[in-house]
Amino acid sequence: MSSPDTSKTSNSLLINRLAVIGVGLIGGSLAKALRDANAVGEVIGCGRDADNLQRAVDLDVIDHFELQPAQAVKNADMVVLAVPVGAMANILTQIKPHLLPDCILTDVGSTKRSVVDTVKTVFGELPAGFVPGHPIAGTEKSGVDAAYPGLFHNRRVVLTPNAETSESALDTVSEMWGLTGAKVWRLGVDEHDHLLAISSHLPHVLAFSLVDSLASMPDHQDIFRFSAGGFRDFTRIASSDPQMWHDICLNNRHELLAALNAYMRDLQGVVDALQNNDSEELFKRFSHAKAARDEHVDR
Amino acid sequence: MSSPDTSKTSNSLLINRLAVIGVGLIGGSLAKALRDANAVGEVIGCGRDADNLQRAVDLDVIDHFELQPAQAVKNADMVVLAVPVGAMANILTQIKPHLLPDCILTDVGSTKRSVVDTVKTVFGELPAGFVPGHPIAGTEKSGVDAAYPGLFHNRRVVLTPNAETSESALDTVSEMWGLTGAKVWRLGVDEHDHLLAISSHLPHVLAFSLVDSLASMPDHQDIFRFSAGGFRDFTRIASSDPQMWHDICLNNRHELLAALNAYMRDLQGVVDALQNNDSEELFKRFSHAKAARDEHVDR
Repeated sequence: MSSPDTSKTSNSLLINRLAVIGVGLIGGSLAKALRDANAVGEVIGCGRDADNLQRAVDLDVIDHFELQPAQAVKNADMVVLAVPVGAMANILTQIKPHLLPDCILTDVGSTKRSVVDTVKTVFGELPAGFVPGHPIAGTEKSGVDAAYPGLFHNRRVVLTPNAETSESALDTVSEMWGLTGAKVWRLGVDEHDHLLAISSHLPHVLAFSLVDSLASMPDHQDIFRFSAGGFRDFTRIASSDPQMWHDICLNNRHELLAALNAYMRDLQGVVDALQNNDSEELFKRFSHAKAARDEHVDR
Repeated sequence: MSSPDTSKTSNSLLINRLAVIGVGLIGGSLAKALRDANAVGEVIGCGRDADNLQRAVDLDVIDHFELQPAQAVKNADMVVLAVPVGAMANILTQIKPHLLPDCILTDVGSTKRSVVDTVKTVFGELPAGFVPGHPIAGTEKSGVDAAYPGLFHNRRVVLTPNAETSESALDTVSEMWGLTGAKVWRLGVDEHDHLLAISSHLPHVLAFSLVDSLASMPDHQDIFRFSAGGFRDFTRIASSDPQMWHDICLNNRHELLAALNAYMRDLQGVVDALQNNDSEELFKRFSHAKAARDEHVDR
């Protein structure tokens, strides 16, 4: 274990000792961005795969690593949980006895109600230092090799603090994300899960389902062969990590089911329009969609 | 009207006089690619919008233009129909009396059964010079300003000749597309419509429907605000021309309805898995999708 860099004035650092549990695309990019911003003293990575962690050391993403979360969080003043949301409960249980009393605990999970409830269950209460977070950034790629410090630049990071969250912990986590170039927003826990179910979890399910469905067809080789750029873009998110998205979908399943049911009702409207040869209805829906996308997306 | 360029040896040209009906992304890109390949003598553009056609002249995509299809096709040895498939019948009726007897007639429509049937209805038979075609290329952008000669490079162009199609017309159209850098494939008319319903028409309907659905929600501003790169890619095709896609969907509605119904059945399977908290089933579907996309797409 290396000593903190004493050549820096310690009070100039936002975080003296940062533990990143899960050094993949998000955890690795955050660590790298914070190091580039000279905001962090020592970065300890933790995960189950020693090769991946050694790779993170080689890539200068972390200083060193631990395979046990309980070891990784010792003396950390900030712990970032960057594991799939389904793994949170196990990690939290392991680290709880080893956290410093004033340690700030935050996460990057794509679902917030499930993480907040898990923290409450494990800790018996919501600790003042716990700041639930979700950087709305990512690609279909996974792992520390895909990590880069610019990942969060101009992206939104949502924090969903609760009544128990201390202002100083919230300020520190906000400042941390601000240093990565992200725009920090605050939302309610359930508001977050509702919005993300529609804008993120639903599209992922639709894309996974489409490719799963096509791949099961006897002529799938020809179907893929005669697909074009539109199909490539449309299905890009189906190359995302299936474990991570399985966790997200199950951990936000009520909101996701509501979004799926609403979508299937609307899709049935298109089916009806096609069956009725209803030119006007079809054109109205497609035009409305194009106008909305041109207005709201990719500006 | 300019005279053909007599400085070129006319027999070195694949096409002496080319009429492009519909000078948008596809028609414009094809004309430009053929001019760049020195494969064409004179290019006459035709459309309803004189400003767009003048723009095409200014961009050196066409030599000059006509607003009447009947005028545009006079003395042409090749006519390319690059209009939405819903406009084919009207154009074909207008040009039929004015085509040279040995004129080659081809199209770029995304549905082939409807175009073939329309030609048969208008001409009373399938002319030997008619070669149905479909370049599987495009972007969500439209119009001659989006046209570029490299659009077809390494893309597939499907030709669906029938028993009546002459070998020489088929060879010429194949050679024409080969000069744009495209890979030319032959498929049966119905085989084409079946494959494209699944790989192209279905995803467009899903994307249009999703954005239409979201844009109708009271909190759509927040939904779009907290969307990320995955959503942008997934919905890119919803910025496509609604008129063109309305035409495609109605003109291939039987195959598209079959694809939609199969998709909705599979999607219901995901809904069931979520409702039953069936972790294994969900993971199996997502993993299958990721493996298939990684294998078949974006290679």
